[in-house]
Amino acid sequence: MMRINFQQKLDELKERLLVMAGLVEQAIQRATEAYSTRDTELCELVKLSEPAINRMEREIDQAALDLLAMEQPMAVDLRFIIAVIRINADLERVGDQAVGIAGRVKDLGMFANLDIPVDIPKLASLSQAMVRKALQAFIEGDADLAQSVLTLDDQVDEMNREAFRSLGELIKTKPEMSSQALNALIISRNLERVGDHATNIAEDVIFWVRGADVRHGWAPEED
Amino acid sequence: MMRINFQQKLDELKERLLVMAGLVEQAIQRATEAYSTRDTELCELVKLSEPAINRMEREIDQAALDLLAMEQPMAVDLRFIIAVIRINADLERVGDQAVGIAGRVKDLGMFANLDIPVDIPKLASLSQAMVRKALQAFIEGDADLAQSVLTLDDQVDEMNREAFRSLGELIKTKPEMSSQALNALIISRNLERVGDHATNIAEDVIFWVRGADVRHGWAPEED
Repeated sequence: MMRINFQQKLDELKERLLVMAGLVEQAIQRATEAYSTRDTELCELVKLSEPAINRMEREIDQAALDLLAMEQPMAVDLRFIIAVIRINADLERVGDQAVGIAGRVKDLGMFANLDIPVDIPKLASLSQAMVRKALQAFIEGDADLAQSVLTLDDQVDEMNREAFRSLGELIKTKPEMSSQALNALIISRNLERVGDHATNIAEDVIFWVRGADVRHGWAPEED
Repeated sequence: MMRINFQQKLDELKERLLVMAGLVEQAIQRATEAYSTRDTELCELVKLSEPAINRMEREIDQAALDLLAMEQPMAVDLRFIIAVIRINADLERVGDQAVGIAGRVKDLGMFANLDIPVDIPKLASLSQAMVRKALQAFIEGDADLAQSVLTLDDQVDEMNREAFRSLGELIKTKPEMSSQALNALIISRNLERVGDHATNIAEDVIFWVRGADVRHGWAPEED
């Protein structure tokens, strides 16, 4: 009887984390859309979502701690709760990146995206896909799917290096474009960090499901 | 008898985290010194420290999980272990920032620091002071000291905004300096992130000691 109750609590914790994830995904989606349309009202909406995300982060942490304290879970359940605590922190930081992007978009003003030699929307959709896949892996407890997120991260990093190069070039040849270029550079790096957080989330899913710590290329078979 | 053993294990965990912290502080110190002296060999040393830091992160996480699973700690001990898990992740990311700075310093080459209108060494010493204070607070379980870290963060953020402005200005007036300016910009942001991680660590100390979640300005009295 008590165990059934415990399983319900674990499910509730999972659901709450998914609500949190929904808020965060919406924030990053809006920030990206705001970039494409230069919609400053959308930027405001992103900023307004921050307190709600922060509150939810605290509530989930508290719920996870209560479960640890009262139920004293073992093995896979313990790993699940620790994974939730870590994923929760990463999600909150993705929300911070969304706010960062929204701030930059406001600074960009009405400059045309066409003039910026970085495909920000592509970079954004890649990072968002990473977050979505990592969360899907969390929902399904699918370590293989989580593993696939890790390879996407290399792509995002490479796009980011390329952005750094081409924006540097733009600044040299068209100094009058420099403030847009700087803003685009910061947005690219914000998106790269979103990808990093998605990678962390994927690693936490693998840790939960397989009981192995795969971070930094480590696996129990090799070590 | 068992509780004495448990207390020993908690102390050991704390000591291990402090060794980890020592490695990370050294990495950020070396990266900063490499910036001042343009010492590319020092940059290499920073990169070489990464695998050791990553390995130590995994070991500490594993030790913390073992303690959670086997000892089923309550209240303040439980919060301590959760704080260790979180601080551990933040320390590893400070190490990543050190590697990021080292990479940029290599790109800066022999350009004179004098020409860069941002006091990177000052920003670096501020962020390092934040990390040191946060760790001191962790060692002493001193929530007031931890609280003082949070105010320093505003200073770092303000310096960073100023860096963004003045580097943008530099690029406009001296486009031939643009690649140095971009590198300096990225280094400033790396240091800002070091400050953010120090803030996270300080918040975890407060959470452990006071049992309150102070993140995002929240305190139990107010809520």
